[in-house]
Amino acid sequence: MLQYDKLSLNIPDTTKPRVVIIGGGFGGMNLAKSLRDTDVQVVLFDRQNYNGFWPLLYQVATAGLEADSIAEPFRKMFDDHKDFHFRMVRVNKIDPATKTVTTLIGDLRYDYLVIASGSKSNFFGNEQIQKYAFPLKTIPEALNIRSQLLQCFEQASITRDPAERQSLLNFVIAGAGPTGVEMAGSLAEMRKHVLPADYPGLDFSQMNIYVVEGLSKVLPPMSDEAGQKAQRYLEDLGVIVKLNTLVDSYDGETVTFKGGEQIKTQTLVWGAGVTGALIDGIPAESLERGRILVDPINRVQGLTDVFAIGDIAFMKTEKWPKGHPGVAQPAIQQGNHLAKNLRRMLKNEPTEPFEYFDKGSLAIVGRSRAVADLPGNIHLGGFIAWMAWLFVHIWYLVGFRSKLIVFSNWMYRLFTYQRGTRLIIRPFIRKDDKVANEIMLKNEVA
Amino acid sequence: MLQYDKLSLNIPDTTKPRVVIIGGGFGGMNLAKSLRDTDVQVVLFDRQNYNGFWPLLYQVATAGLEADSIAEPFRKMFDDHKDFHFRMVRVNKIDPATKTVTTLIGDLRYDYLVIASGSKSNFFGNEQIQKYAFPLKTIPEALNIRSQLLQCFEQASITRDPAERQSLLNFVIAGAGPTGVEMAGSLAEMRKHVLPADYPGLDFSQMNIYVVEGLSKVLPPMSDEAGQKAQRYLEDLGVIVKLNTLVDSYDGETVTFKGGEQIKTQTLVWGAGVTGALIDGIPAESLERGRILVDPINRVQGLTDVFAIGDIAFMKTEKWPKGHPGVAQPAIQQGNHLAKNLRRMLKNEPTEPFEYFDKGSLAIVGRSRAVADLPGNIHLGGFIAWMAWLFVHIWYLVGFRSKLIVFSNWMYRLFTYQRGTRLIIRPFIRKDDKVANEIMLKNEVA
Repeated sequence: MLQYDKLSLNIPDTTKPRVVIIGGGFGGMNLAKSLRDTDVQVVLFDRQNYNGFWPLLYQVATAGLEADSIAEPFRKMFDDHKDFHFRMVRVNKIDPATKTVTTLIGDLRYDYLVIASGSKSNFFGNEQIQKYAFPLKTIPEALNIRSQLLQCFEQASITRDPAERQSLLNFVIAGAGPTGVEMAGSLAEMRKHVLPADYPGLDFSQMNIYVVEGLSKVLPPMSDEAGQKAQRYLEDLGVIVKLNTLVDSYDGETVTFKGGEQIKTQTLVWGAGVTGALIDGIPAESLERGRILVDPINRVQGLTDVFAIGDIAFMKTEKWPKGHPGVAQPAIQQGNHLAKNLRRMLKNEPTEPFEYFDKGSLAIVGRSRAVADLPGNIHLGGFIAWMAWLFVHIWYLVGFRSKLIVFSNWMYRLFTYQRGTRLIIRPFIRKDDKVANEIMLKNEVA
Repeated sequence: MLQYDKLSLNIPDTTKPRVVIIGGGFGGMNLAKSLRDTDVQVVLFDRQNYNGFWPLLYQVATAGLEADSIAEPFRKMFDDHKDFHFRMVRVNKIDPATKTVTTLIGDLRYDYLVIASGSKSNFFGNEQIQKYAFPLKTIPEALNIRSQLLQCFEQASITRDPAERQSLLNFVIAGAGPTGVEMAGSLAEMRKHVLPADYPGLDFSQMNIYVVEGLSKVLPPMSDEAGQKAQRYLEDLGVIVKLNTLVDSYDGETVTFKGGEQIKTQTLVWGAGVTGALIDGIPAESLERGRILVDPINRVQGLTDVFAIGDIAFMKTEKWPKGHPGVAQPAIQQGNHLAKNLRRMLKNEPTEPFEYFDKGSLAIVGRSRAVADLPGNIHLGGFIAWMAWLFVHIWYLVGFRSKLIVFSNWMYRLFTYQRGTRLIIRPFIRKDDKVANEIMLKNEVA
């Protein structure tokens, strides 16, 4: 058994400058990749041993892709980098005064520190929702949703109680951002093309998919055109869209909205908000709205040699007064740009401010139903946007292998309308649901 | 939340004969498939919602294949069968007197009952081994091993204690049957081709792979030629093979063998034996060595209308006095054969005794290293046996999709020596290891 006093980070001493990166998401991973041939030691901390391609996480949640298809282990990704060190460990705090990072198993001095810890689900302080809702930010969470969806249909098949069955067949998705829209569209396509054949004993006209959004439009970060198109696509697929509706409470059985309306459901997917995954030790005056204020070279306000990139960073600019959108592109670009600036600093050359190159945004509702906002006020929809979505996502997927698997899965689905992988590998079991616990037993042979 | 009094099996009443199958492994699945166009109602019970291709389970455990690649959901498999009903539920007992099966959520009368519940790990009553060893019979167990292996290397990277590091790098596999041989060979290939690049900070000459076997040969069920070849292949790959060696105890830290020798290891993989996954209600006089005695048409000894097929069935014949081997082929053939006999019984025609058509046995050690015993006393090894192994396993893999994914994974590995999927999706955590628990935290962002 492990004992703390026998553990240490075991990072070799070096005379080279040491760059410590906290978090290997789009920002941290691209920074580390861009530092490959720079004469620095790179140390990457992450609590997972893989980089996930989060834009496709909803596919894992709706049984379209294997979890492994959207993830790439850091060890493999960086196995040809010299003086690169990955440690799968949580960072507890940073201390800019002593230039030290404190992890569960020891401290490490840095020359440059980059906080790329991303975002986490925001439950707005509602502990009951946090306990019962299904967030969708990590692979284990996506697998929980996959198990939950399939278990709902299995359980609906064995209940005699119509109210219970209805509650098992009601799916409520909080938040009409890309995650919520993609989840809802994907579920609606399952209902149309897959589930009736799988569960001939169930009446799928009873299955309801709700998307509820506090703001007045679908896809709030995108254009009005895109939002309206996406809403129409969702409604064409039979999804019930409720705008200007906020979730007030959820006890695992009933969602109550502000205003009093209630829906009985066993499944509330939480895509209603994120907040920065902060780390202790960042001065309070450097924080705003749960994110870290940075200057135009991503340096944390008030600190030297500490940087923040990606979702956790809040860079106020004229064009982006609320910061850059919390999607992959700003993180990727900031990671690559910071690598260049670090090299400039090492050579005592002047740094260059970050400028976000907005390539546009895409969201998918279903097959042949996607929306795109492109630079130059161009708005696409339908099949063309869908092809663009497919192309962009395959293009950016990390690593040759993932691309091949995802591509073959997609081609297969394209021709057959089948979903890949409707397996309940680890049943999702609420600890307080004793019966589900017993019925969905695992690990032992029947 | 589910309540028992609101649940029922919800199997529609029918005037057709009802065939109830317990377990959807090779036997049960093939029986159900073969009954497709027979005028019966088929009810399949299984505690998993998928059929697994168990001969490739070791690949999941050693990060070579995704779990989803070797499994196919029953719902999908049978979505075009009429009057077929799958229920994901455990069978508690059977009552031949009333022709009833009792599950957690209700009883069901049968006209014909087929027990195809397979086998489970046999710890020979040693509770300590059962608690600490890693069995390899189910997909969650394989994923536990995958997580454990990768966590061992991560943890070996952060310990300063040489004894702890050695114990993390020692892997002991109990049992030199096909599972043990395949696990050991696969681990040895990882050590050779993958791990040194992934973990440049570790010295892999310290990594030891032991296979211990109580009998005097490797691959006891196969020919002496095959066993000797497999042993040589293993030793060529640097695996330490210990024959005539029985595990006496394992406390999670130290394996002690009968005779007193000890090896410190964090990982004992248990492939040392299986026993029938029995169900309450089978008369004691119908059991022998943990299996169900059946007559030549797989009817359970002493019962009418109750059959047992596959690993759980013990059919004594002149050629197979100890029963058929516990592999896929007898189960598949018995499933198909029983379907034919059921049709004959329905038409009041005489049944025909089962005859096992032995197609031979195969086991794989690594790339270009496999052994085959073919009918006619033919023994193959090396590249030819390996090609045969590849061909047979792809051929029998269930479902078009799995075949494509597995095939593309294999082709990829063939050309790159890469393993697919070295992800710790759900860390394996011993409840009593508090530090590992904290370090391998999951689900939250770094």
